[in-house]
Amino acid sequence: MNFSSRLLEEAVNEFSKLPGVGQKTALRLVLHLLNKDEAEIGRFAGAMVTLKKDIKYCTVCHNISDDETCSICTSPKRDHETICVVEDTRDVMAIENTNQYFGSYHVLGGLISPMDGVGPSDLQIESLVKRVATHPVKEIILALSANMEGDTTLFYLHKKLKDFNIPITTIARGIAFGGELEYADEVTLGRSIITRVPYENTLIKG
Amino acid sequence: MNFSSRLLEEAVNEFSKLPGVGQKTALRLVLHLLNKDEAEIGRFAGAMVTLKKDIKYCTVCHNISDDETCSICTSPKRDHETICVVEDTRDVMAIENTNQYFGSYHVLGGLISPMDGVGPSDLQIESLVKRVATHPVKEIILALSANMEGDTTLFYLHKKLKDFNIPITTIARGIAFGGELEYADEVTLGRSIITRVPYENTLIKG
Repeated sequence: MNFSSRLLEEAVNEFSKLPGVGQKTALRLVLHLLNKDEAEIGRFAGAMVTLKKDIKYCTVCHNISDDETCSICTSPKRDHETICVVEDTRDVMAIENTNQYFGSYHVLGGLISPMDGVGPSDLQIESLVKRVATHPVKEIILALSANMEGDTTLFYLHKKLKDFNIPITTIARGIAFGGELEYADEVTLGRSIITRVPYENTLIKG
Repeated sequence: MNFSSRLLEEAVNEFSKLPGVGQKTALRLVLHLLNKDEAEIGRFAGAMVTLKKDIKYCTVCHNISDDETCSICTSPKRDHETICVVEDTRDVMAIENTNQYFGSYHVLGGLISPMDGVGPSDLQIESLVKRVATHPVKEIILALSANMEGDTTLFYLHKKLKDFNIPITTIARGIAFGGELEYADEVTLGRSIITRVPYENTLIKG
């Protein structure tokens, strides 16, 4: 691109480093912001800087938090003996949005991925083992992505946790609600037949 | 969304004000940035703040510039007697990328749009009239979008400029290169027949 201004080019380059943002989109975002007043741009830039500077991670579950311990880990309404292990804070938010889970979480901060140089020691796995060893836990739910990194992490976690003799479960895989059978991939469809459940179990009680 | 942190929520809200960025995308962008170190986030935030603070608009053509007069308006290689009138700096960049235009520009800073409260006085129209009145100009090219705002602006500009008796042209409309006739809309196809050109004129000389 032919930029008429070096400052403009720098701002566009910074924006185009964001995932999924190319140079044209970056230019559109920068010109959009440029039309705002200085205070508004200051708020935009400041929010990110403040977040990075003041962000805390819950000392129990390692979720992003404003305090030492997050609101879920301190809530008396939650079941702290059930731990749902997830990759990152987005998964916590996604599960919270379902309003179907009332236990606590453990945020790994990623998945084991030798390709990206992420090993078990880069994740909050030791602290999970310690947490399970020192607190009463009645179930560990592994809610990880169904890809190679997820499966590797699942395997590793199971190995680390199985000696505690606590039920370890994983979230159900299958055809999505609203999904049509003919468009489902073979692996999902095949596994959904193998792991079929009694019809009565699928009825929501209450 | 259920945010575990107020700071995170604020950053996501700021990002989701950007055009085409919803809450989920904003969250993805914020978490991506959060993984970077403080210096990198500072550069990202600083680029936009610096741009807003130090940005200049060329006193001749009103394009975004680092100096009082932009590099196109000061270039001895450009034809300063031909003025291409465009909506904003993105159009300048798009035309520059074609390597087919060697004149100068005039950036209006928008289009007349009564719906959005943008009138002629909000745009660089008076300064265009003054520029044409005080400098030798041999052609004015109106390169505006083919929508209602573009047509309204075109009509207004023509009214303001016609008494100078300088040729006023608009960029050619028609079927895009690579575009198939059957998928073209009726207006474009109809106009492209009415404004047909001799075949010899379409051959690039040189």
